[in-house]
This record gives sequence, C-alpha cells and structure tokens, in this order.
Amino acid sequence: MEQEERHLHEECGVFGVCSSKKQDVASLTYYGLFALQHRGQESAGIVVNDEGVFSSCCDVGLVSEVFPPQRLHALGQGNIAVGHVRYATTGSDHKRNVQPIVINHFKGRMALAHNGNLTNSMPLRHQLEERGSIFHTTTDSEVIAYLIVQERLRQPSIEAAVSAAMDRLEGAYSLVISSPAKLIAARDPMGFRPLCLGQREDGGIVFASESCALDAVGAKLVRDLLPGEIVVADAQGVRTDTSHCGRTAPHLCVFELIYFARPDSVIQGCSVSRARERAGAFLAQEHPVEADVVIGVPDSGLDAALGYARASGIPYAIGFTKNRYVGRTFIAPTQAMREEGVDLKLNPVREVVEGKRVVLIDDSIVRGTTCRRTIAMLRRAGAKEIHMRVSAPPFVAPCYYGTDIDSGDNLIANHHTVEEIAEIIGVDSLGYLSLEHTRALVGREMGFCTACFGGGYPTSIPQSGEKDRFEYKIPRKPQ
Amino acid sequence: MEQEERHLHEECGVFGVCSSKKQDVASLTYYGLFALQHRGQESAGIVVNDEGVFSSCCDVGLVSEVFPPQRLHALGQGNIAVGHVRYATTGSDHKRNVQPIVINHFKGRMALAHNGNLTNSMPLRHQLEERGSIFHTTTDSEVIAYLIVQERLRQPSIEAAVSAAMDRLEGAYSLVISSPAKLIAARDPMGFRPLCLGQREDGGIVFASESCALDAVGAKLVRDLLPGEIVVADAQGVRTDTSHCGRTAPHLCVFELIYFARPDSVIQGCSVSRARERAGAFLAQEHPVEADVVIGVPDSGLDAALGYARASGIPYAIGFTKNRYVGRTFIAPTQAMREEGVDLKLNPVREVVEGKRVVLIDDSIVRGTTCRRTIAMLRRAGAKEIHMRVSAPPFVAPCYYGTDIDSGDNLIANHHTVEEIAEIIGVDSLGYLSLEHTRALVGREMGFCTACFGGGYPTSIPQSGEKDRFEYKIPRKPQ
Amino acid sequence: MEQEERHLHEECGVFGVCSSKKQDVASLTYYGLFALQHRGQESAGIVVNDEGVFSSCCDVGLVSEVFPPQRLHALGQGNIAVGHVRYATTGSDHKRNVQPIVINHFKGRMALAHNGNLTNSMPLRHQLEERGSIFHTTTDSEVIAYLIVQERLRQPSIEAAVSAAMDRLEGAYSLVISSPAKLIAARDPMGFRPLCLGQREDGGIVFASESCALDAVGAKLVRDLLPGEIVVADAQGVRTDTSHCGRTAPHLCVFELIYFARPDSVIQGCSVSRARERAGAFLAQEHPVEADVVIGVPDSGLDAALGYARASGIPYAIGFTKNRYVGRTFIAPTQAMREEGVDLKLNPVREVVEGKRVVLIDDSIVRGTTCRRTIAMLRRAGAKEIHMRVSAPPFVAPCYYGTDIDSGDNLIANHHTVEEIAEIIGVDSLGYLSLEHTRALVGREMGFCTACFGGGYPTSIPQSGEKDRFEYKIPRKPQ
Amino acid sequence: MEQEERHLHEECGVFGVCSSKKQDVASLTYYGLFALQHRGQESAGIVVNDEGVFSSCCDVGLVSEVFPPQRLHALGQGNIAVGHVRYATTGSDHKRNVQPIVINHFKGRMALAHNGNLTNSMPLRHQLEERGSIFHTTTDSEVIAYLIVQERLRQPSIEAAVSAAMDRLEGAYSLVISSPAKLIAARDPMGFRPLCLGQREDGGIVFASESCALDAVGAKLVRDLLPGEIVVADAQGVRTDTSHCGRTAPHLCVFELIYFARPDSVIQGCSVSRARERAGAFLAQEHPVEADVVIGVPDSGLDAALGYARASGIPYAIGFTKNRYVGRTFIAPTQAMREEGVDLKLNPVREVVEGKRVVLIDDSIVRGTTCRRTIAMLRRAGAKEIHMRVSAPPFVAPCYYGTDIDSGDNLIANHHTVEEIAEIIGVDSLGYLSLEHTRALVGREMGFCTACFGGGYPTSIPQSGEKDRFEYKIPRKPQ
Repeated sequence: MEQEERHLHEECGVFGVCSSKKQDVASLTYYGLFALQHRGQESAGIVVNDEGVFSSCCDVGLVSEVFPPQRLHALGQGNIAVGHVRYATTGSDHKRNVQPIVINHFKGRMALAHNGNLTNSMPLRHQLEERGSIFHTTTDSEVIAYLIVQERLRQPSIEAAVSAAMDRLEGAYSLVISSPAKLIAARDPMGFRPLCLGQREDGGIVFASESCALDAVGAKLVRDLLPGEIVVADAQGVRTDTSHCGRTAPHLCVFELIYFARPDSVIQGCSVSRARERAGAFLAQEHPVEADVVIGVPDSGLDAALGYARASGIPYAIGFTKNRYVGRTFIAPTQAMREEGVDLKLNPVREVVEGKRVVLIDDSIVRGTTCRRTIAMLRRAGAKEIHMRVSAPPFVAPCYYGTDIDSGDNLIANHHTVEEIAEIIGVDSLGYLSLEHTRALVGREMGFCTACFGGGYPTSIPQSGEKDRFEYKIPRKPQ
Repeated sequence: MEQEERHLHEECGVFGVCSSKKQDVASLTYYGLFALQHRGQESAGIVVNDEGVFSSCCDVGLVSEVFPPQRLHALGQGNIAVGHVRYATTGSDHKRNVQPIVINHFKGRMALAHNGNLTNSMPLRHQLEERGSIFHTTTDSEVIAYLIVQERLRQPSIEAAVSAAMDRLEGAYSLVISSPAKLIAARDPMGFRPLCLGQREDGGIVFASESCALDAVGAKLVRDLLPGEIVVADAQGVRTDTSHCGRTAPHLCVFELIYFARPDSVIQGCSVSRARERAGAFLAQEHPVEADVVIGVPDSGLDAALGYARASGIPYAIGFTKNRYVGRTFIAPTQAMREEGVDLKLNPVREVVEGKRVVLIDDSIVRGTTCRRTIAMLRRAGAKEIHMRVSAPPFVAPCYYGTDIDSGDNLIANHHTVEEIAEIIGVDSLGYLSLEHTRALVGREMGFCTACFGGGYPTSIPQSGEKDRFEYKIPRKPQ
Repeated sequence: MEQEERHLHEECGVFGVCSSKKQDVASLTYYGLFALQHRGQESAGIVVNDEGVFSSCCDVGLVSEVFPPQRLHALGQGNIAVGHVRYATTGSDHKRNVQPIVINHFKGRMALAHNGNLTNSMPLRHQLEERGSIFHTTTDSEVIAYLIVQERLRQPSIEAAVSAAMDRLEGAYSLVISSPAKLIAARDPMGFRPLCLGQREDGGIVFASESCALDAVGAKLVRDLLPGEIVVADAQGVRTDTSHCGRTAPHLCVFELIYFARPDSVIQGCSVSRARERAGAFLAQEHPVEADVVIGVPDSGLDAALGYARASGIPYAIGFTKNRYVGRTFIAPTQAMREEGVDLKLNPVREVVEGKRVVLIDDSIVRGTTCRRTIAMLRRAGAKEIHMRVSAPPFVAPCYYGTDIDSGDNLIANHHTVEEIAEIIGVDSLGYLSLEHTRALVGREMGFCTACFGGGYPTSIPQSGEKDRFEYKIPRKPQ
Repeated sequence: MEQEERHLHEECGVFGVCSSKKQDVASLTYYGLFALQHRGQESAGIVVNDEGVFSSCCDVGLVSEVFPPQRLHALGQGNIAVGHVRYATTGSDHKRNVQPIVINHFKGRMALAHNGNLTNSMPLRHQLEERGSIFHTTTDSEVIAYLIVQERLRQPSIEAAVSAAMDRLEGAYSLVISSPAKLIAARDPMGFRPLCLGQREDGGIVFASESCALDAVGAKLVRDLLPGEIVVADAQGVRTDTSHCGRTAPHLCVFELIYFARPDSVIQGCSVSRARERAGAFLAQEHPVEADVVIGVPDSGLDAALGYARASGIPYAIGFTKNRYVGRTFIAPTQAMREEGVDLKLNPVREVVEGKRVVLIDDSIVRGTTCRRTIAMLRRAGAKEIHMRVSAPPFVAPCYYGTDIDSGDNLIANHHTVEEIAEIIGVDSLGYLSLEHTRALVGREMGFCTACFGGGYPTSIPQSGEKDRFEYKIPRKPQ
C-alpha cells in the first residue's frame, strides 16, 4: 500500500456489545475498538448505556490516546456499549464529527455508530432542514439518526423505526445503535461494509465491523449480518428482521479483502489472509516471471507475496523491516532527506535483495509516488530486477461508499497505461490482478462492489460538490 | 465569598464582535473572553465566521488552556466571531455541552452563545421532541437554537426569527448569535443577565456580558441592551428591535452587582465598584459597631469594606494576602491540614488584625463552613473581636435564572437565625444588608430580581426534577 | 511594579522540613512552596528523604503544574524534605538547572536548595575544574555542593563541612540542605536573603525563605536565622552554629520588604505589610500633593498606597481590577492592540479615577514602558491629574545578590532626571522614596543592602562576562 | 520473544554525527534515534554542538514524544550532534538518568552517550568519591565522564583522555562523545555491544549502534568499529586509535543477532536477517519434526521461521496478526480477560493453523508465562500439534553487559528440563538451538559472549548488591 502522499483510508469501524448482566462493557468496547484501530485512526468514541443512562467519551486520537485509564473507568459499568473509530474530517471543526453520536429524543437517548457513506444524504438533509431540523455535524450519521427518530414517531419500536428509515437510505451503512434498552445492528441491503455478530461465553452479544474484534473480546464469530439485515439484542435475547434482505444483489467492497481488513478477520466465511494468498496465486498465474525472490510490502502485501511464492515456486523472503514506532506525532523527513533515500518507515533488507531479481507485491498503486520511492530504495539496496505485481486491478473511479479513493484525477491508472506506469515507478515489469480474479478472491461465487476498479456503481451517485454546501463562502451583499 | 465547599457560580459569559473588514476577530474574542473568565471557568469556545464559513474551537478548560496560540491562530480571520465561557456540567458527557453551539440549518450555519437559564425549557424540549427533533446536548441553548431555526421557516430574516422565538421563551437569556452574515444580540424581557453593546475605534460592534470585556478589546461602552431588546449588526450597520421591551418590569439579578461582575464593569449605568462601596456604606448605617479596623474578604469583599470604612470612620486595612497561584490543578490541603489552620488561598496579615476589634466584610454566607474557617484563621492571627457584615441579604431560595444558588437545604440562613449563624461561624456580631438597601445599590430606582433573598420569583418556575429526565435509570422490564 | 517588558524577579525560594516521625513531608513541602511561588515561577522541585533514601521530582513549571497528585504521592513519606522554586535560565538547557540538586557522594546522598547568588562562583568553579571536577549545571548551587562535599572529606560532620565551605563562599546564599540524617539551614554572613525557622505543633522543624510558608504548613515562626548562622535539625533536636555570625554588618536586601516578599510575611521581626505602609507614609511626607484619591498598582503597591492615604488624609481607593487568570500560557495582546489601550492584566475602575486628581503608588520604575502604559490607561479612564509616588529610590545599579536588576543600561533612572522620567511616563508629578527613609522601613536601625539604589556594594563583585564562559562559541581552527 | 511479564531489554542505542558544514544535525540525529528506537523506549536525548555551544533536550518518552517539532527545532543547527535512546530506571528519580549526559569541565563542555554496562563501576565510583567527587546520576556514563575529564588533566587531547580512561574501564561500553570540536566513538576491547561507522554523501561522519540508523540518515555503512577502537571525527577528518584493540578475544553479544538488532542491520559484516534464517535452518537440522506449517512469533521470530521452513521443506506461513497500535499508554487486559483468551497484541490466523501440525519459532523463553499463553491461543484457534523451536539456547545466567537478563531465579530453564518446560508451556515438542550452532550464526568463526547461555563470563563480574548503595535505608540512630 502506498504511504504518506496517498494512503487509502477505510472511514470507520463500529462495535457494540449487549450483556444480560451489568459489567465493564466500556473495557470490552475498548478492546474491540483497539482491534479495529486499522479502520480509523483519527478519532475514537465509546458510549456506555447503564439502563438508559448514557455516558460517553469521544475525542480525536487513537483509542489508547482518547482513553487513558481514568477516562475509560469514568464511563462506568453498563449493559450495553457502542464504539467507533474513524478518520475525522480535517479543520478546526473536526471534533464535532466524532462518533458515536449521542442524542436525546422523545423516547430517551440513542447512540449511533456508522461505517459507510450514504449516496443520498444531501437530499435527505435538505428535506429535514426544510422542516426546521438543525444539524450539529456534517456526518451522514446524524441524517440517519434523524430519520430513525422521526420514524419512531410512527413506529411501535426502535427496530421498526430503523427498518422504516432504511427504506429511505441509499448507499453504504453498517450501523450499531443503542436505544435505552436495546442494541441494534443493521447493514445496508447491498452489504458494502462488513458487519458481523459474535457471542461471548457469558452469552453477551457482540457486533463488530470485523471478526478480529470478536477475538479481542473473547467472543466467537456466529455469522456475518446479511446484507439488509437488522439484528436486535436486548434482555429478551436476539431477534432478526430480514425484510430488507435479498431485494438486491450483494455488493461487498472487495477492497476490504484486498487491503482494509485485518488478515486474521473472516468476512463472509472467508479468511482475509486466505483471500490475499489467493490473490497472490492468481497473480503468479496471470503475470509469471523468472525471479530469485518474492517479497511483499508490509503489512498488507505479505500474504499475497506468500501466495505468489507458493504458486510460482520462487522463494518467499522478508524484504523490508518496518519501523514499528511511526506514530501520529512523528516528524517526517523533508523532501531533501527523502531524495537522499531516507525512509523512516520502511527499510529494505539488503541481504535479501542485493543482486537478486525481485518480485515485489503490493496491494495497490494510487498516485505512484510512494511506490516509486520504495522501488528506488530497493534499487539502492542492490536489486537487479524488480517485477511489481499488484494484488488488485488499477483504480479508475472514485468510491462513494465509505473509503477515500477519490477523484479520478489523482489516480495514475486513469492517465497512463500499465507500461507507462511501470516506467514511471521504475520497475522492469508490472502486472495487476484482473477484475475476474478479483471477483474470485473468496473462492466461490459472490457479489462484490468493484466500482473503483471500473466495475460500475451499483447505486446512483451523489452530484458533485453538493456535500460542501457550508464550506464555501457566501457572496456578501454590496454595502 | 465562601470558597471551596460552596462557591456561587455565574453560569456563563458571552461575547460577540462584528467588523466591516475581515480581521483577527478570534484574538479579539479571546481577549474578551479572558476578561469574562470570572463568569465561567470550566469551558471556553470561539466561533469565527468568515463570510459564512464557520471555524470553531470549544473545549473544557480556561480560555488560556483551550486556546494555545496555534489553536487560536487556526481559527483564521473573519468578519464575525462569537465566544462563550461557562461552567460545564459534570460527568463524562460534559464536553457535549460546551458552547457556542454551531449548527447547520436550511439557511446555512448558525452559532449561538447563551448566558442564563430558561424556566420553560423542558416543555419546549418536549414539544420539539414530539415533532421528531433530536438533541445533542442538554443545554437550553439548543432549545433556543431550535426555536429560532423553526421560526426562520416562517420569518423573513434571522432577527425576525429570534424575535418570534422570544415569544416562546421564558426565563433568563442573554444571547449572542451569528448567522452567515449577521451578528445578533438579544436579552430577555426581564433582563436577568447583563448584556452590553460597545464600539471599537474601527467601527466594529462588540457585544459582551460585561463592559470589562469591551475595555479588553479597546471598545467603548455604548450602552446596555434594554431588557427584551434585539440588536443586529452586519455590513449595513446596527439595527435594533425593541418590540419585546417594556412588557414587564426589569429584573436584573442583583447578585451581579454584589458578587458576579467585575468591579471595573458598569452595569445599567452603575459602576459595580461603586455599588459595592454603597453596600458597605449601607451596612455601616444598618449595623454600626465600635471597632479598630475594617477588612474585606478578597476580592469581592474589598470594595464593600472600603465603603463601610468610609461611612463609619473606622480605618480600612488590607487584612488578607491571597495566593494568586491557586489554579484548577491545585492540590487542596487535607481536612487534617485544614484543622491545623492551613489555608493556602488566603492568609491573614497578623500585623493588621492582632489585638484588634475587626469588622470583616464578605458578600455572602452560603453553608457557613468556609466562613467559619476564615474567622478561625483571624482568631489565630490574634483578632480580639470579629464583627462580620455581609453585603447582601441571607440566601433563602434557589435561583432558576442562571446561577447555582440551589436548594434551600444547603443554605444556612434557611435553618438558622442570624444570632445562631453568628455563633456557628464564631463571630462576635453579624449583620446582613437589608433587602431594601440591596434594591438601592445603584443609587436610583431600578427593578431587580431578588428571588434568592426571598424577594419572590418573577416568572413561573420549573417543576422539580424535570430537567434530569435522561439522567435517571429506566426501569428494566422483567426478563 | 512594572510588568511584561521588565519584571523584577526574585530568583528563588527555599523550604525544608524535618520531622521526628515519618509522614507526608512531600505535601508539607508542596504547601510551603506554593506559598513561596511568588519568589520563583519557572521551576519547582521537592526531594523527600526517607531514612537516607531520596526521592525527588523537579521540573519546569509552577508548583501546581510540576506536582499533579500522582507525582506528589509518588514521592512517598519521609522524615525530611527539601523544596525549591526558581526562575529557570532560558534556552533548551534550562531543565538541567532545576533545584534542589541531588547528588551522591562518599557519605551518601545530599539534596541542596539555594536562594541567592555567589559573587565568587567563577573562581571557585575554576579551582574545582582544575582538579578534574565536572559540572552538570551552571548553577552556584552545584559549586556550593562541591565545596561542602570536599570539606566533608576533612570534617567530622556535614554541618562542620557546611561551616568550612562558608569560609570560601562570598555573596548571597540562603541554603537548605538534607544529608541522609539531617536537615541543615545556613544563611550567608551578610544575610542578603531572608531565611526563617519555624516549628509545627508536632515538633517538626521548618525552614523557609519567608514566614508565609510557615503559615501554610501550620508552623509558628520561631525566628529568622541570624546572618551567618547554621542550624541543624535531626532526630536529636535543633542545634545552631553561630561561628560565622557578627563578622560583618548585616545587609538584608531592602527590596525584599518593598516588593519581593509577601505582605503577610514577617522579616527580621517586621511585618512586610507594615513596612510598605510606612513607605507610603514617608512618601506622603517627602512628596505631598493635593489630590482626590490615592490608588496603588496591585498587588505590591496597595499597602504603600494605603500608607500614603492615611498619612496624607487623601481617600484611599481601589483603582484597578486585576485579572486573576493571567497564567504562563496566556497569549499577550499584540503591540497594535496595546496601542489601542488593551491591557488584559490590569483595568482601571473608571468610577474611581474619572475627573479626579490621582496619587498613583507603585514600588518601582525599571525601564518606564509598562509604567507609561498604565498611566495612559488611567488618562483614558478620565484621570485629571496623575501624581506618581514610588515606594523605593530609583534603580541605578545592577544586583549581584540573587535578583535580576541588571545592567545600568536598562534602567531609566540612569539616563534621566526625575523630571524627565515624569515627562516620559506622562505624569503630572513624580516622587521617589529617599534612601534615608528606605533604610528606616522596619521602624528601627537595621543594616540593609541598598546597592541597586546606589548604596554601594558590600562585597567585591564578579568580573563582567565571566559567567557565560560556555555560552559563547569557540573559534574554530582553520581547516 | 515473550511479552508483557518479561521482556528482554537492550539497554541503549547511541548515535553521533559530525559534519564539516553547519547543518540540521538535530534532525539527522532524530532520524537515527528513530531507527534505533527498538534498543530503548523509555527515554531519548539529543545534544547539538554548535562550535562549542551545546543545546540539549533529553526526556522520558519515545523519540517522537520527546521531540515534537518545536523542541527539535529549538536545538538549532550545529556541526556535531550526539543522541541516545534508553530504558530508564524506574522510580521518581528516573529523569535524572536520561542521556546523553552533558557536563562542563575545565576544557569546556562534553556530551556523552553510552550503551553497555561497566563491571567495575562501583569500585571506580568509590575511588572518585573518596577524592570528593559528586554524582548527579547513578549511571555508568557519569563514571566514564569523570575518568575522561580527570585523564584530560594529564593528556594532550580528548581522544588521548578517552584512551587513558579505557585503561581503567571494565565491561561493556560503546560510547559516542562530543567535545567542543570533536566527535569521538569508542568501543570496549571485547566489543560486547555493536558500534558502526558510516558516511553521508556530503562527507559527514556518522556513528551508530546499528547500521539501520545509517540507512535512516542516508549514510553508507563503512565498517564496524573494532573492539577497543577509538575513532575521532572533526574538521580535519577521521582518525583512529587501535591501541586497545586485539588485547583480548572479541565477545560480541550473540543475542544482538538473535533478538536485539533489527533484521535490516548488518553487524560484523553479517546481515541480522541472514543470521536468524541460519538459526532457523540449524534448528531444522537439530530438531526436525513432521508438520504442516512453520510460523514465527512476530517480529523477531519470523526470519528464523522462514529459515526453518526452507531447510525442512515444511511450508512457511504468516500465523499471527500483530496489532500495530500497541503503545506505551495502552490499557492491557485484566487477568480475567486474558484467561478468556484475550490478547490484544497478537491474534492467530485461524485459517493458517486450524487442524494443522504447527512448528512455532520464537527467539527465547524467559519465564514461560507469555509463551504458554501464546500456545493456548494457537490451541483455541485449532492447532492440532504444536512443536516449538527456540532460535537460541536456554537462558541460565544473568547478563552484566547491558541487557536485563537477570537473576537465574526468574529463568525457567534454570529450574526445569526441556521436557518439563514443554509440558509447562503446553507444546507437543520443544527444541532449543545448541550453543555450538549459536556460535556459528554469522557463518564464520567469530568470538561471541554467550554468558547468559552458560558460556561463561569473559570478565570478572560485580559483587552482588553493590550497585544499590543509596537505594537502601540507613539505620537511624536511637533518639
């Protein structure tokens, strides 16, 4: 994965737990969010629900920064908790957008954590505003909360309100919601973002974006939520509403398997680690090459590299040492330093690549700049040939479903052929995984969203610019 | 003023500035809030409006803590800014209630800062909730924002919407509001809390809770807003709406003069310093005594002490040294240490009181505990007689208009006669200012709220407990 | 006292406590240092000695900042503690100079806190260096520690070593030292800096720079140490060594009485508050004027103002409100803002000065810039005439005994007559206290150091520049 | 490597740079220390020498925490810089021991950074103390500094003084020292700790504990310093003194290769990565087993696992996902949580191990507790058999040369046979690398220290307890 200039970001991770007995659900959520930290590193939040009394703490920072022991402890015990990690929007207002959002409405409090992106949030927001609604944030989550609360006026239960609200939502959403007495999880009918259900030995129900968060709280993975499913957990047990399921084909974001998710997570019954190895094996099949060693760009390229090595018979090696101390406060080298070859995050192991023909596996090329630097580093370390293999197809279109793969202008594959890219980044050969093989990553027939790879948008998409209505200056009247 | 066990807290200070030219309004607001810091020390916030684009920063802490230089600088330049200092509610949720609140609605953004307390916020909140509104905070400010936004649907301008909303609000409110293009100040028809209008040499309009904040930004005090007045400042100039004025008698909180406001502020044309001296003079008249020296409890008792001294002819002296380094992070002495006579905030000047008959002036007695300790300290320092004079009547009733003078149970004067209190706190004599003289503090006829002194509530008051609806646990259904 | 541009700084405050029973001596020292905070606001340190095991914490910041509860608690209990507050030197190295210094030597550990300034530290340092000594700091304290340790090689006890070291020290030093089993206080033979002895009810012995720190720990002032005296406290009781006493006339820094010390402290049997009032009375006698009101610049000018008022019969008033929230992180107004009249620390009370002939009392004028601004502020507030009276003579010479009254170049009185200064700062008349009256401040014959007022240096003084040997660049050899 | 209960810690990393032109040597040192962060995570320090004027900043924390941009920037430019990372001693005094130490002596300033541990520091310290020396820290570094300064009295140059001091030092030391005009590196005659020399394209000379720090500043590895070598860099170039070389056999700590060093470092001409692979291959030879997959405990077990896989023909796999967000402020799970199987740092990839016979490679077993938990985790994830192979011999003796492998009592291998350990930690078989193979890790004859594996101490060792002289309470005299 490219670094620094252009990282791809999953926008969020969600977590929820519901226990029949009052306990330290804050700590469970802390551990769960900690395991989901790779899905969002800019802000974190936990809301504890103790029989209808909500305590919350949300702030900018990593989970470990937002929650020093005394702040975690201050959340107290409860039956239900909801947590969230996210990439915050930038600017001085970014604190306003931390999640879970906690609101008061006529039925009490509600906490809501959201992973994904609506494609019709602006029209929905306008409709709400025209009726006098006010918004504190610029998040889709607040729009969703409004719809649920307004449906609740007419519906007999919170889950019925969620179901009715879902009739009005378009796009990607994996939600975890706490009402005073219930924990509710819901996934959009296309299932863009993952969301799974687990159970702890004490019977506690857990919802999480990825199964690695279940492991982190000692819960067993029961199953993924179906696209469109609503699951309710409360003192009476677990109930499911599948009325929105099956109306449309599933469209799981395939980049979850390729990059976003942790290798130890299992999504739709498929080990992420295994899917990546499979990608490597497909690459070996599609783009074979004579070489001495296969190395992966850590961490997300390692499994695919191993897959390539196994399928090709070329030895696998550990080609880079990654500095584990790169944090958010780290001072990056200047441009001048970088040109001298300084890369503090990644350093090639000279022994492994010197004088060798190297197959280098990464999961994507966005702009190509980081990639080019990594390759230059390998050359300086003595690599004789570099054959780059990318475990995904080229990015050619922006994502509207909760990642920041943005405007086509920034995507190198939109302006250049594969041969041109190979020359730009300085490799001897370059091969991308085909769209067909990408769709086969889980080893069985399954519906994926491949919009960013040119596979087409499964929904209508937002009109350009409509999202930033309040970020532009208004014209001032003449004085 | 009593300390530690029971401080009386003003709940907020508000500030706003509107300039015809874009400038560093963030710094002006910083200076203004800094001068209003005594009105609220738990959180601070500034919103800068740059032609409709709002940047904000609000957090828990003193003004100087919330705004290190880089954060203040990050707010950028603008034409309008709104600021707020407040006492945050306690608990893990307190960050949600920082102000100014900033919301998006169908006409753009709005920032709102509020000082005071509504007496009908719960019924208003219920009405809004029943129509599907959601609340992010438990503040009255959000209720007010809702009403304004909903009136805006029907009204031709933001100021008309404010005016219409005021028809529905009861209680105390001094508001400063920024719409995309206007700065609006409004004061409730009874004028419980102060709010004044100033002008800078460059023509910029400033609103502030107290005139000391005008001094802090180089602005001249123009006048106080009338009770019920709405003033609008924008690129076209300053306009006023007095349609809510004069419908009811004014009820300025008299404790603003006695304690809350800074001595260098001028409220309703009266110098706070002068009002306090007058209180001291009245006390000398009501409760004369033979003594050697008059001293005041710093800082709010000093002016009254000087007034007592002048009126009585007894020499004034500076009887205490106050430690200026007591901050929020200070470790207070243990109970055991206190009983040994350790008081780190205040130390008597032995030279001044030793062997003397002392008149001690303070502005209030709440529970009596701090007071008793201060007096014990004076005894240890050798005071022969102590005659306490309080520059206000006894507290006997809670305040619903924006201060935390709470339930009668905690008020010593509700359970004891003046003679009993004198004995409890250990003085040779005790005298309170009469309600009549209290009403005469500004030196002319004027309407005050004296509810906390038993003067009666000028509005209906909230039903007990209704405010904490979401703070109590809900009964869980049997499983 | 002038502010911002040119504050006069006392360099340090020292504190020590010795208890026969193990107790929370860290907290006692915290309270003591807190009361001495005015003597040094840049760094603070506490060393706890628990039967020879020393725990220490010293850092840059106010006492309340350096010691959050967990850090204070971590120091544990002990029999002896030593504390220090100071003005740190600037630059990135300043952390190295925090005190008390704690060292290991052949007899165990030693902690040492020092207030004052040696005049022969450079020659002493050179002698030590020439024998191979290394220095971690640039403080005099380390030089003193070295001398004591080296004398200890020859002397039978730590107190004998202190006594022998004193034979070699010149200049100002008030020391508090802990050896493994003893607490020792020593004062230079001229007694430049104050140092007093107190006793707690539990028998614990306390040493402190000022008696206000005794009050803060519930100790009674026993007496000041004699100039040249060494007092030892340990489990056997208190012993004194007066062998260095009386060899020379005492030279207490008179500016301790005028400005540095807290009004509630008693130095050499004289209340600081009373000395200042006396200064005001002398001023009234030396420089009478017809006026309507006497005001003091807070806080150090208030007592003198009261003294002037009493002696002259002109009414005393409280002319300024001081903002109590000015801390170290405060963002000061820009020069442009200041010229608009913004002063966030001090605001005149218009009511008090408007249309009046004002006598303004301050304790010093250094450069004159702050003074001029304060006076401009009074003019803007409507003062008709301003007659400034300074409760000390003009500064004309640098101090080498532990304050930062530095090179004559920065002192306005070195370049201008009183009349010129009056014109520069913008007052109608100006009068300084005479040197004769300054020497009479305690109301009886007593030896003072008045070197900064031109009274002559009682010791030889350091050669210029010798102190900064390691701060200047060395010439590089040609390559 | 075992985690949490018992981590093995390298005690320090050192870095120095000397440039002929003044430049941002602080940033170079920052990058170098960042690459050496794995050698010490408790404190960090940088000293910049600008023609004899030293600026320094040393504090507790990671490099990125100690040096926010403004602090790094404040160090300014210079010709020479010295840096250090370390494990601080615990307790409130730990700040005193941060490095590099900076001292003043008769020839100017000196900064010194030290990696290693003297075995005769106590006798040396006693000798110094007996001559009246004082110590501010409890580090060996200060003893070394003293010896150098005292030799400097007799020697013509700083390098000659270092050389003379080395005659008196015993044990492990890799030093980087800055005098006003020179940068000096020195390595003890046995070469316990690594130290290498590099050069930047601009000619700048760099010294570092490991070559990965050279890569981080764009420098090429020239060579390792010889055991006993002193290298001097200054404006005149680079000079070497090998007079201490070859007096004794080299004794490089073999655990540097096995665990401490980064895989991308090259030590004594051997790639650390390659040495670890070789360890894995030796293990496959010594302890073969039938299995389905070979996995390594990240990160230090991965290379050895790959070596085992290659040599045995059993497939290599990535068996664990490591959470990259575990930092110093992380809240670890409670014991109860751990027993539920919660391990937030490491999670097995179920797909990889389920139903498999697993060879698990780690680099050491200390107490066995962490190990046991990791194995239980693998069992829960479905591993059918677990065969543990350790890429080093068992620990049986404490280390006195700069790591914290301590008293034999805590070492499981001291109390149990290999079979017993296998049963305790729950594996089906267990094999350690033999001492013979350990000595062959670099692929050629070379002298190693293998004392901790029972290979015997190459020097005399310190007497027990002598180090903590000042940490024990002294007996108090009867009162």
